[in-house]
Amino acid sequence: MKRRQFVGGLAAAAGLAACAKQESECTGEAGALETFEWSMVTSWPPAFPGLGTGAEKLAESITEASGGRLKIKVYAGGELVPAFEVFDAVSRGTVEMGHDASYYHKGKVEAAQFFATIPFGLTGTEMSAWMHHGGGIELWRELYEPHNLVPFMAGNTDTQMGGWFNKEINSIADLKGLKMRIPGMGGEVLRRAGGTPVTLPGSEIFTALQTGAIDATEWVGPWNDSAFGFHKAAQYYYYPGWHEPGPVLECIINKDAWNALPADLQTIVQIACDAATHNMTAEYNYHNAVSLQQLLQNPDIEVREFPKEVMHRFRQLSAELLDELAERDPAAAKIMASFDEFRRISTANQRIGVDAFLETRD
Amino acid sequence: MKRRQFVGGLAAAAGLAACAKQESECTGEAGALETFEWSMVTSWPPAFPGLGTGAEKLAESITEASGGRLKIKVYAGGELVPAFEVFDAVSRGTVEMGHDASYYHKGKVEAAQFFATIPFGLTGTEMSAWMHHGGGIELWRELYEPHNLVPFMAGNTDTQMGGWFNKEINSIADLKGLKMRIPGMGGEVLRRAGGTPVTLPGSEIFTALQTGAIDATEWVGPWNDSAFGFHKAAQYYYYPGWHEPGPVLECIINKDAWNALPADLQTIVQIACDAATHNMTAEYNYHNAVSLQQLLQNPDIEVREFPKEVMHRFRQLSAELLDELAERDPAAAKIMASFDEFRRISTANQRIGVDAFLETRD
Repeated sequence: MKRRQFVGGLAAAAGLAACAKQESECTGEAGALETFEWSMVTSWPPAFPGLGTGAEKLAESITEASGGRLKIKVYAGGELVPAFEVFDAVSRGTVEMGHDASYYHKGKVEAAQFFATIPFGLTGTEMSAWMHHGGGIELWRELYEPHNLVPFMAGNTDTQMGGWFNKEINSIADLKGLKMRIPGMGGEVLRRAGGTPVTLPGSEIFTALQTGAIDATEWVGPWNDSAFGFHKAAQYYYYPGWHEPGPVLECIINKDAWNALPADLQTIVQIACDAATHNMTAEYNYHNAVSLQQLLQNPDIEVREFPKEVMHRFRQLSAELLDELAERDPAAAKIMASFDEFRRISTANQRIGVDAFLETRD
Repeated sequence: MKRRQFVGGLAAAAGLAACAKQESECTGEAGALETFEWSMVTSWPPAFPGLGTGAEKLAESITEASGGRLKIKVYAGGELVPAFEVFDAVSRGTVEMGHDASYYHKGKVEAAQFFATIPFGLTGTEMSAWMHHGGGIELWRELYEPHNLVPFMAGNTDTQMGGWFNKEINSIADLKGLKMRIPGMGGEVLRRAGGTPVTLPGSEIFTALQTGAIDATEWVGPWNDSAFGFHKAAQYYYYPGWHEPGPVLECIINKDAWNALPADLQTIVQIACDAATHNMTAEYNYHNAVSLQQLLQNPDIEVREFPKEVMHRFRQLSAELLDELAERDPAAAKIMASFDEFRRISTANQRIGVDAFLETRD
């Protein structure tokens, strides 16, 4: 939310505190104890570990922190609106709140992808840095403004994995004709590299991989991938997840609903979303470590790094794709300039900081 | 806080919501609108960027989110109690809340150091993963319980730098007689490696480095270090920060004060602390990137990696030191077992996830 929206916060706060002391004055205190019952639609299957449970925890923490003054009921994808119509439902005000990822809206707002993840983009840590201090959030709000939406970061899976393959990828030539389930920009990069990107809902991937209908699939990372059993249907687990280096999950709020909240409830939503980003990132980094350990001990699986020449080609094609996007969409061009500037200066800091340390630790 | 402390949360919440609707029932509602005025003492100089401002933002967000029902006034180090007596002041109940780092209490609770950072320990991302999902927070609460304190993570600087040097470190031999300002376990490791660790307050470091009274100093990272002007007093900036790979800042609360809070305010404190960890980490990762970029362009400075043999020696000595600690302190042994187990399984995940990606991106 904008800084100035907080200006009234302490005044309202003072009002409420005063009420606590002299309850006779409370009567008629504008909205001070008004309650709200909101619906949150999501893109996730019911209780999906990490993404779905993260949305549920976010709703719970807002409900609890507000002492029930802002009660949020969560709906899994398809329960109230289809999984990929969260944006529209919140924008129209059918519901007040949604939890999904901004790259799902690329058909409507192509530049929104920068606020989830783009190929060779920013890691989870870097996304938070750019969003909170590099101008990202301001650009995001500007982009969603005409859609009557206020966006918040509310989760991150951190760097994903490259995916499960039943064909070895030793060179660019091995991408030729590769049938891989990979949506979005990553899919388009694969297509330009000679492969065939396939779109499949999560529930159909395992069988497609097992029967050979597809040669490969990306999904999330060791934790979510293991739950889907992909290691039983494919032999090679490739890294890194070049196409999704730090996907942000978003909480979007209908602007009219947001503006109707008193300042204290707005602050609760803001800190609950920041807490959700922290907690989901921690959850993925913990469970991915545990699951990867198990996969590394599985003799039927080989965890492999993509060859350098393949990564180089993917990087080249990703840059082309992004340049085309910036050319046809001025909003994307403006966002990309800010994003690229931070990526440029962040690299040395990440390499000299965390990376160099991890290399020396182990 | 423990899960079961939340059980009452929704009941209280429901009570408060009901009050909003039928205010006649509010009279006498136990503590529903009770207000609290707390003091938060810190170990930071007034408005110190990152650590001090982070504590101030934490207090503000709790005050705002609670609508002024939990008002927190922040005191810089020395204003109300000396900077390193935060633990005692909160433990005794002189004040309700403190913001500092748990390794400052090693004189009283040696094992507390694991909950800030230890040499060759966990990065910021890993600390959050271990704390929230690997049993860290539970061990921390157990350790602080006899001191009448409830601890929360409330910030992280992420991996720090090795420090500023006026002597080249090309081999273990160069550590001999090296006078370096480096406190805590890192200092003891340096001593065992042949150096002379020196303790100096922040305000005296610059002059000591400039006059040659010390050869080297560690501090935080590019952002905070640049503000102190160390690049004007030393030539070599070494990495990685092996001695402080992901220091957690803590928010400690007097247990009686904590237990007196209704469930909704407890939830506000919890999510505000998680948000503070997220936001401070983002802030350091942003500003460190900007400041490091400037330092890298400064022709008078050389940013250098410690030689492998020096890191190897530091790692060996750190392990010895930690083994000795575990031997004399059963609490430390128990915590170390959990910490080490997560460090062991986390490595592959960090290297295959974020690290491999950053290497291929750039």
